[in-house]
Formats: sequence, structure tokens, C-alpha cells
Amino acid sequence: MWKESFIVIEFLAIASGCLSGVLHALRRNFDIVGVMIIGIASGVGGGILRDVLISDGPPLVIKYESYLITILSATFIGMFFGTLIDRLQKVIWHVDAFSLGFFTIAGMQRAFLNDLSVLPALFLGVITATGGGLLRDVLSRETPIILLPGHPHTLASLFGGIIYMIFIKLFGFEIIISETIGVISTYILKLVALKYDLIVPT
Amino acid sequence: MWKESFIVIEFLAIASGCLSGVLHALRRNFDIVGVMIIGIASGVGGGILRDVLISDGPPLVIKYESYLITILSATFIGMFFGTLIDRLQKVIWHVDAFSLGFFTIAGMQRAFLNDLSVLPALFLGVITATGGGLLRDVLSRETPIILLPGHPHTLASLFGGIIYMIFIKLFGFEIIISETIGVISTYILKLVALKYDLIVPT
Amino acid sequence: MWKESFIVIEFLAIASGCLSGVLHALRRNFDIVGVMIIGIASGVGGGILRDVLISDGPPLVIKYESYLITILSATFIGMFFGTLIDRLQKVIWHVDAFSLGFFTIAGMQRAFLNDLSVLPALFLGVITATGGGLLRDVLSRETPIILLPGHPHTLASLFGGIIYMIFIKLFGFEIIISETIGVISTYILKLVALKYDLIVPT
Repeated sequence: MWKESFIVIEFLAIASGCLSGVLHALRRNFDIVGVMIIGIASGVGGGILRDVLISDGPPLVIKYESYLITILSATFIGMFFGTLIDRLQKVIWHVDAFSLGFFTIAGMQRAFLNDLSVLPALFLGVITATGGGLLRDVLSRETPIILLPGHPHTLASLFGGIIYMIFIKLFGFEIIISETIGVISTYILKLVALKYDLIVPT
Repeated sequence: MWKESFIVIEFLAIASGCLSGVLHALRRNFDIVGVMIIGIASGVGGGILRDVLISDGPPLVIKYESYLITILSATFIGMFFGTLIDRLQKVIWHVDAFSLGFFTIAGMQRAFLNDLSVLPALFLGVITATGGGLLRDVLSRETPIILLPGHPHTLASLFGGIIYMIFIKLFGFEIIISETIGVISTYILKLVALKYDLIVPT
Repeated sequence: MWKESFIVIEFLAIASGCLSGVLHALRRNFDIVGVMIIGIASGVGGGILRDVLISDGPPLVIKYESYLITILSATFIGMFFGTLIDRLQKVIWHVDAFSLGFFTIAGMQRAFLNDLSVLPALFLGVITATGGGLLRDVLSRETPIILLPGHPHTLASLFGGIIYMIFIKLFGFEIIISETIGVISTYILKLVALKYDLIVPT
């Protein structure tokens, strides 16, 4: 059951990353191929960076066709229903906030599976969660949004990862519970920061 | 015979990519080292991206000295005969259009050699074919040309790859014939698009 | 003794790369997370690129926690004592000039350990030495400084690498002596270029 729901969540998170990328690209003067490229980069850029760094065979995106099918579907949906989805921005914000934590934890798990220690695992978790957006911005020739002052994003990812570590290593909670707490922590931090307009200091 | 001609074509394609990069860089305010860097990135960026993603040992460019010798030679030729080669723009356009298909098919073949399935192979083929130009633009701090409206480029690469797949998997043609048809398809699509000024829609 | 001093030098070079990156980022309108990201990218970007290309397991930065601890420490020091360190710019220049040669030689050694030949080793040495700055500039959305006319930087790295090769392969010097000569060659070239304002031609 858990494994199945994990997979569903993963593909939802990837699709949401794609949609965000497509919406971002649609506001630029890119052609449909450009929009697709930005959508793909946003959706799986973080996971590719993580897998290349872990270097345990080809990235999952390349290995399993289901990833590319998910990305392409999400990208096409984004392109055809762009204006419709634009109105769902608020929903996408929440899915993205949730995905941020999810990707962080998923990245850390893959790091632990490859016998990496805590600090590198956190590093990879944050890269998994923020790499797609970074790649999107670099390709669109914009200053990466994660460098600029704004609501905590990288910090929220880091926060969720640290909470996850604390619960699993310090408190000895079960993996699945610790993961859930980690993902929710990131989500709550994002929510609170939005509500009280907390800005990362310069 | 086939293997030999394949190698000759590969090095011709890489050299052509380098030359395009050098010509591109010469029009910017880069110094000679900058021109070399852009030339190298244009020539082998796509292949490096492909090999890093396939992650079957170091990229061919690193593994076999002949690649670096080819790139450096092409880069030097481009730098010393820049104005001369600038007049050959038309020839280079045709070699580039041909290289686009060639790199696509070569990338797909390497993907199949590593037991990847059709969709990832297409993905890697397109990355091989367009990655060099992408890297060139990102390093030159320009909006990647493959994102902007213009004649089909990524689409032409994708088109050749799909044709290749159809001929080999659906029609059961021999590999070498399917490859040739794939490369030529890309080339013809580029030609037709140029002639009738077909633009990828936004 | 030699091995210990090598490690000390390596971490000093990484820390210096981080500090340069942080100082660079502090002058932009990035928030503290952005400054950290640029610091990390500057410090270990080159090494990560090298290790991904060599593809002999995960990059050292991911494998050994000591690297991330060094980077994070250097980044925090840079952020808290930014104005102080800004006054040490001259010292940092010298450490950076030294690091350039050191990273070149260290990159080449790792290439030789993986049975790569001379030209690819030089290529990887230069990437190790210049990759961090390149990544810093691309992420900050600036034209990479190594492309623009200025004092030799990439050339100084290449020069040190070639001198190292000549001493070890042609003259048959001991590894450790050849290395030292290579590092010093880079440093001296940088010094001379600064003093006589030598500019790489365009």
C-alpha cells in the first residue's frame, strides 16, 4: 500500500513540477518546443542532477519510460489547457509546496540507499527539490529565483530534511512516519512564510 | 567499410559543430580562450550530456584522445580562418543540418546499446543533437536558440529519430538503412522548413 | 607527510574558492541562501564536474562529509566576516592564483588514476580549476569571466598542466616535484600577467 501511494505521490510531484515549468515558459516568448523543454527540465531536472551525482547507473528518468510518459503528458496538458491551469495557480502552489518536501525526502532516501552519510544526503535532498527550478531559470536565462530574496524555498526544503533526520535518527521514529513529518514540515514552513510574509534575509 | 565511414561522419559532424560554435563566439567580445571554450562546448557538449546520462563510464570525449584532437583542430581552424569560414556559412548550414540527424541517430544507438527503451532513446538522441548548441548559448549568456521561435531544429531531430524507429521497429528494415533514412529525414525537414520558411508555432 | 600536506592544501584551495564565491555573491542582490549556493558552487563546482566526467562513483564532495563541512564553514565565515574578508582581497587573489594551479594538477592526477591519457587529463585539469568559477557565473546569470578578455586564467591553468606533464613525462622528474613545479608555474604566470598587465588577445 505504502509503496503504491509513494509512486502515485512521486508522479504527482513530477507532473506538478512540469506544469509549473510550462506555465512559467508560456509567459515567455518561447515556441511550443521551448515550452516543452522548460516543462521537462522543471519536472525532472532535480531528479536527474541527483542521479548523476549519486552515479548509480542512468537517472531513473532515462531508465523507466513511465517518467518520460508522465512528463510529456503533463507538458501537453499544460500547453493545451494553459489558461485554464493558470487559474489553478493557487492549487499548483500547494502541490508545489508539498512536492518540495516530497522531493527532498525522496532524494535523501536515494542517498541513504547508496550509503551516503547525513550531510551529503541533505545536500542531495535539497538539490533534488530545487534543481528543476534552477535548471528552468538557467535555461530561460533568468537569475535563478532561489538566489533572490523571497519566501523560504531552499530553506524550507532543508528544514524538512533536517526534521526528517531528527525524527529518524534522534527520536528513532519509523521511516514512513519520519518521512511524512518531514514532508509536512516543509509544507507548513512554506504556508507560514506565505501567510506572515516571511522573507529570507539578505 | 560501414564502420569506417561512420567514424569519418562522426568526426566531420563534431568538427562542424565546433566550427559553428567558433563562428558564433567570434561575433561576441570573447578572447581567444573564450572562443575555444565555446567551440569545444558546441562540438562535444551534446555527446558529453548523453554519455553522462547513460553513465556507462567516462564520456567518449574523455576516453579517446581522437575526439579532443578533432575538436582542438577544428577550433584552431575556425579561429585562424574565421573570416574565410564565415563565407562558407551556407556550406556549414548544410553540414549542421546533416549533423543534427546524425547526432540524433548516433545518440539513439548508444542508448539502445545500453538497453534503454524507445522513449528514453529518443530523449537521448535529441539531447545529443541539440545539447551542444544549448550549452553554447547558456555559456554565452544568451537565451537558448532552441527555446525561441524559428525553423524546426529540435523537432527535426525528433522527426528523424521517430522515422528511424518506425523503419527499424515497424517495417523491420536493416539498421544501416533505417539510420540513413533517419538522418536524411531530419535533413530534408530542415531544408523544406528553410525553403518555405516554416516556423514552429508559439 | 606529503599526503597530509596535500589534504591540507586541497581543503585550503576549496575554502578559498568558496570565499571568492561568497564575496562575489555578496555584491549581488542575493539573499543569504543565494550567497551560500554561489559559495558552494564556486568551491566545489570544478571538482564535481571533474568527478561526473571521470564517472568513477559519486563525486568526492558527496562521498566524504569533510568536503561539505569545509565548504559550509568557509561559506559561513565568508558571510559573517564579509566586509573583513573583502579587505583581504589581495590575500585571496594569491590563494586563488595558487589554487588554480593546485586544482589543475589535482584534476590531472585523478584523471591519470583512472587511466586517461594526456590530452583528456589536461582537459579535466582545466575543468577542475575553472569549473567552479564558470558555474558561479552561469548561476549568477553573468557572462562567464573566463570567456571575456582579461588576464590569463584558463591559459595559466593549462600552462601549469603542460609544465607538469613535461617535467614528469619528458624529464622524468619525480611526481611530487613535477606537481610542485606545475602549481608554481601557474602561480608565476598569473603574477607576471598581473604585474605587466598581460591580456589574452581577442
